[in-house]
Amino acid sequence: MKLALDTSQSSGSIALLEAGKLLYSAYFDIRVTHSETLMPALDNALKICGKSPGDLDELLVCIGPGSFTGLRIGLATIKGIAYGLGLSVTAYNSLQLSALPCTISGKNILSVIDARMHEVYAALYLPDLGIIQAPKVLSPINILSWDLKAAIITGSGAGIIRKVLEAEGIKAEYAPAYFCIPRAEGLFSLADLLPSPSYEGESLSELVPLYLRESTAQVKRQQKLST
Amino acid sequence: MKLALDTSQSSGSIALLEAGKLLYSAYFDIRVTHSETLMPALDNALKICGKSPGDLDELLVCIGPGSFTGLRIGLATIKGIAYGLGLSVTAYNSLQLSALPCTISGKNILSVIDARMHEVYAALYLPDLGIIQAPKVLSPINILSWDLKAAIITGSGAGIIRKVLEAEGIKAEYAPAYFCIPRAEGLFSLADLLPSPSYEGESLSELVPLYLRESTAQVKRQQKLST
Repeated sequence: MKLALDTSQSSGSIALLEAGKLLYSAYFDIRVTHSETLMPALDNALKICGKSPGDLDELLVCIGPGSFTGLRIGLATIKGIAYGLGLSVTAYNSLQLSALPCTISGKNILSVIDARMHEVYAALYLPDLGIIQAPKVLSPINILSWDLKAAIITGSGAGIIRKVLEAEGIKAEYAPAYFCIPRAEGLFSLADLLPSPSYEGESLSELVPLYLRESTAQVKRQQKLST
Repeated sequence: MKLALDTSQSSGSIALLEAGKLLYSAYFDIRVTHSETLMPALDNALKICGKSPGDLDELLVCIGPGSFTGLRIGLATIKGIAYGLGLSVTAYNSLQLSALPCTISGKNILSVIDARMHEVYAALYLPDLGIIQAPKVLSPINILSWDLKAAIITGSGAGIIRKVLEAEGIKAEYAPAYFCIPRAEGLFSLADLLPSPSYEGESLSELVPLYLRESTAQVKRQQKLST
């Protein structure tokens, strides 16, 4: 049985897959810390499915970019399980995960996540998730230099880009809200679509969050030091 | 806060939406009866979100076609909540719900659910879920009389249709597994897309499952009586 975990945004989700079939998934966006909800949610998932941790044989996780605290909690949890049970972890990024529901549109996909501090995390993909623009953190206005024609815009930060494009009089297609929600079970589908690094044993130490920039606390500290 | 419920297939799912934002969703396909899992799953959803039944103000449910027992349990549950709290219930069918993730494809959508007894429930929709063929139960081979060109095929019964089409040498496009999973939160999106009847108070008695045919038990009984 495979376990997938995403805590890269304010929402979190977990999913269990057995023999190619989705057994269970849960998504929660409840403004409480992942540290309080994640382990009880995992316990509950296994219990509902009549499973135990020993039934797990593969792990998948979303490494960000996104919430710094969420990512640390998610990665610490999945690494703990991987070390404890001797399992491998395959990692995908949150912009790929957000883009997945739009792959069926047949269009290029601009995947955007709110990075706070007037910035966004963004990546531009082909319909099969081939990379046009790799994940980066940037000011929303800088998206204007990307070739967005025939692209569909999705992700929790799509509304930020919409404001920028509309202010410039640029029309674009936006995914409805239903398609903008990242779900951990999408990691199983990404594994079918895309190769990605796997970590196991000692190499688990190389499995680190994809932050793309320093944390808000670090940036503020540096700003303070330089003034 | 809105509650959506789908128990129309062997899987079940529940979702909570507040102020347009998905708070929680859970999907489970665990081959135990909905009667054992549904109320604990609902209790757990409210508890995780720090909510109580009194926070609910609108209900949505999937009325089938699908599992006869699942539908009866789901409708009895949602009607109980509606009567108890004086709320309205809006109903959508399971073929609309299964078609929803494919609306972003821009193609016509053939939505198919396994009806057992060598039959399928099927409907053919425009990309905006306008009806080309309304839901019906039919032998898979009879799908050949429908105009499937430029359609994408989805739903838990897509594999049954695939066998029929491939046996005839007909190529078609099939939604990947990720897009074939019905999720209760899709009912919130259907409510944005499509008008549908709402039931409240005395009219709740008119909210009945969309069976499309008699139950397997009834059909077998009739076959026995006529022989």
